[in-house]
Amino acid sequence: MQISELSDRSGLTVQTIKFYIREGLLPKGAAASATRSDYDERHLERLRLIRALREVGDIPVASIKKIIASVDDESVGMRELFGTTQYALGPHVDAPDDPHWRAAREDVDALIRELGWQVSPEAPARELLAQTFVALRRLGFPITLVELRPYMKAAMSVAEHEIGGIADDAPRSRTVHSMLVSTVLYEQVLTALHRLAQEDVSARRFGD
Amino acid sequence: MQISELSDRSGLTVQTIKFYIREGLLPKGAAASATRSDYDERHLERLRLIRALREVGDIPVASIKKIIASVDDESVGMRELFGTTQYALGPHVDAPDDPHWRAAREDVDALIRELGWQVSPEAPARELLAQTFVALRRLGFPITLVELRPYMKAAMSVAEHEIGGIADDAPRSRTVHSMLVSTVLYEQVLTALHRLAQEDVSARRFGD
Repeated sequence: MQISELSDRSGLTVQTIKFYIREGLLPKGAAASATRSDYDERHLERLRLIRALREVGDIPVASIKKIIASVDDESVGMRELFGTTQYALGPHVDAPDDPHWRAAREDVDALIRELGWQVSPEAPARELLAQTFVALRRLGFPITLVELRPYMKAAMSVAEHEIGGIADDAPRSRTVHSMLVSTVLYEQVLTALHRLAQEDVSARRFGD
Repeated sequence: MQISELSDRSGLTVQTIKFYIREGLLPKGAAASATRSDYDERHLERLRLIRALREVGDIPVASIKKIIASVDDESVGMRELFGTTQYALGPHVDAPDDPHWRAAREDVDALIRELGWQVSPEAPARELLAQTFVALRRLGFPITLVELRPYMKAAMSVAEHEIGGIADDAPRSRTVHSMLVSTVLYEQVLTALHRLAQEDVSARRFGD
């Protein structure tokens, strides 16, 4: 297809598509003539992914570039690819160098060890969790395994569903695509449903 | 206690505390002399809540003001108070007036009706969920009850734990405090644990 059709079907302007090609996020089309390039479904699929990451995940172009480079490099193993993706996605919490923060970070590391979860020491989600531990403690809310268990159970059951749903023979780009979508989009689905469920449970408990 | 001690214990500067008093987020202290006011534990608890909402939830001061006004107004029923809180917290998604968006919003409304959840038509989480439906559909991911069920189950079990954990005789401010904390802070705990669980499940599945 021509770039105009690619633009129509992806919902992105020709200018934006050309920008992504220049930035290396999208491969060039095949040369169809001296002035025209030809694009296929893979271009479309990649553009849709980029659009979702930009619009829903608010992921910077530079981070999307890193993710796509790892997807295209077949020598990068799946586990490393997953780490690169998660790290690029962020969020990157600025950990201040204070004792409360260090204590919270140690609690997070101890929790992950205790659970036996295989998580890289650099995973940004460790800092994200430490940030909430600092805030919860400041508010006087206890952080205990008992208090965290419902959240761990919910998180694990959702993750098992997501990773389990990836077919063994799925192409590499599709697997990453699924991981990205479940991280960025289904994370937001979970947040929205959590708020809706809170309102429902609260309405049933407190009435009008 | 004097304002200097309140500052030490809350971790907020005297200037910030005075700003919150001027903005009506924090009641004035009791006059202890012509130039000195006296503050108590309720001031401290409120400041800790404001700090967590600002720093972790990134909630604007104007929204915090609305929430606190409803907490202080005993004539506002618990259910209405919950709605005010959720609405003030946002996020407020700008819904464009296009057919994809309208279709997604209708799907969200149908889903909530089908589940029998009691949720206000104005709940911002409806727009948040519609936003992800638009993006998922654009990426070619199916949105079916079967696909959503693991997320609904996880969200509901967490919400039941949260609302169920509020004591019947808890003071009004403490109840709201708990709802806010579970919405803003434990939502982030859930997100962080979801990412950690994804990494663990993916490591076990894909190895090194």
